[in-house]
Amino acid sequence: MESLRVELITVGHELLTGSTVNTNASWIGMSLSKLGLTLSRITVVDDRVDEICSSLNEAISRKSSFIIFVGGLGPTHDDITLEAIAKCIGKKLVLNKDALHMIREYYRERKLKLRMTKERLKMAMLPEGSIPLRNRKGTAPGIQLGIDNSLVFCLPGVPREMRSIFNTSIKKIIIERIGTIYRERKLVLIEGIPESSLAPFIRKLQKSYPEAYVKSHPKGYHEGISRLVLELDMRASDKEKLERRLEEMISTIKDYIKNKGGNLKVIGE
Amino acid sequence: MESLRVELITVGHELLTGSTVNTNASWIGMSLSKLGLTLSRITVVDDRVDEICSSLNEAISRKSSFIIFVGGLGPTHDDITLEAIAKCIGKKLVLNKDALHMIREYYRERKLKLRMTKERLKMAMLPEGSIPLRNRKGTAPGIQLGIDNSLVFCLPGVPREMRSIFNTSIKKIIIERIGTIYRERKLVLIEGIPESSLAPFIRKLQKSYPEAYVKSHPKGYHEGISRLVLELDMRASDKEKLERRLEEMISTIKDYIKNKGGNLKVIGE
Repeated sequence: MESLRVELITVGHELLTGSTVNTNASWIGMSLSKLGLTLSRITVVDDRVDEICSSLNEAISRKSSFIIFVGGLGPTHDDITLEAIAKCIGKKLVLNKDALHMIREYYRERKLKLRMTKERLKMAMLPEGSIPLRNRKGTAPGIQLGIDNSLVFCLPGVPREMRSIFNTSIKKIIIERIGTIYRERKLVLIEGIPESSLAPFIRKLQKSYPEAYVKSHPKGYHEGISRLVLELDMRASDKEKLERRLEEMISTIKDYIKNKGGNLKVIGE
Repeated sequence: MESLRVELITVGHELLTGSTVNTNASWIGMSLSKLGLTLSRITVVDDRVDEICSSLNEAISRKSSFIIFVGGLGPTHDDITLEAIAKCIGKKLVLNKDALHMIREYYRERKLKLRMTKERLKMAMLPEGSIPLRNRKGTAPGIQLGIDNSLVFCLPGVPREMRSIFNTSIKKIIIERIGTIYRERKLVLIEGIPESSLAPFIRKLQKSYPEAYVKSHPKGYHEGISRLVLELDMRASDKEKLERRLEEMISTIKDYIKNKGGNLKVIGE
């Protein structure tokens, strides 16, 4: 079902020094999950042409259908994502009239009388062949660009701008390509049975439900009793079948845990 | 100064679906920063042998001095980091007696009378040539392993276990290799001058202070006034010189901002 490979490349020094937590990555991971897709890889690179270029080449060589870049589209000297992509694929950065129009419009709507400086113009200089994606929450437009068999998107790193462009443009393009895939997720709290005792059962469970992803998250001991959360993540193109299979799976787990003298509670989705 | 390349590879499906935010990555980024090092790349891969292996090979081919893996050392079926590394470098997983001793001791200290099941034994099966690193907060030991010219560390994904092994073992090994590098970081809030107007000045500033990393983080508009935070991150092996240069840099920024009619405040480190 998940034949499409999607990779995310987040660009930014602040992600590497740890001064910013990469919540953009988890937001995109979650948003793609809702569409039935799972990221195959996340790469975080510095604001450097060689690093951005090698990460792009690697994602293309892994035959990714979609490659999403986040960060480095702004006006400052270290915003070099588009420059790096252009160099990497041997294209020029050219003034994109639609992008320029979007930037002017953004300033006009906010009644900001700003000169079109070199730095502002930079945000409309896109790799040849790019399609700008409107940014309703900030200045720098996103872009869409086909490279080999991959469709590449670039989004600004400011979270509300990134989210807005993803929701208004990218989601639609992805859904058009993949159709609708349903997804259900349950979190089950298990008490009284340590992870290492549970492991053989989980392995069998995973085999019986190949359409699900099963993962245990140990939560240590609480008043001498071991706790862990079991994550169940199931996908299917048939909604009813999905719900039936998930219920069946949970009751299998319930039976096993009660048999072993443990406790179980579904705690969330 | 930063001739050593350090890469982090975090393993875990939950990081790709966005159900877990990668705070382990930011913690390691920050901890390395305190030692004067900056991560060159962070890669997030799924619990799959092929993905783990390709990410390792790529990090080695980029001549990384240190490669830190986080995640996938536990007892369950999807904890496959060590198995994947062993396959990748053509070594066997062998029972490590020191690791087994650490696991037994961990159970004994907590008065847990648990049988040594296949799953528990698994945590002591390390790629040939590995040195186990004691885990004082959980069962699975970390490991240290030389591959080509890279030193590879593997840590469990449970944050308190990962932090504990990093602080007690890895930090020392890294400091022995690199010596002490001092670092100062300042955050400066600038109001009333938009990022795009500030860009040429920042570019010049970066040129005059090549030992610093300068980055502007736009924070939008507040009551009609633009706000941004300027991040200054400077390193040197001479502590006094570092402090003098950073002060000099901040007063250059102050002069410029006041001249342009903006406001400035140092808001943190």
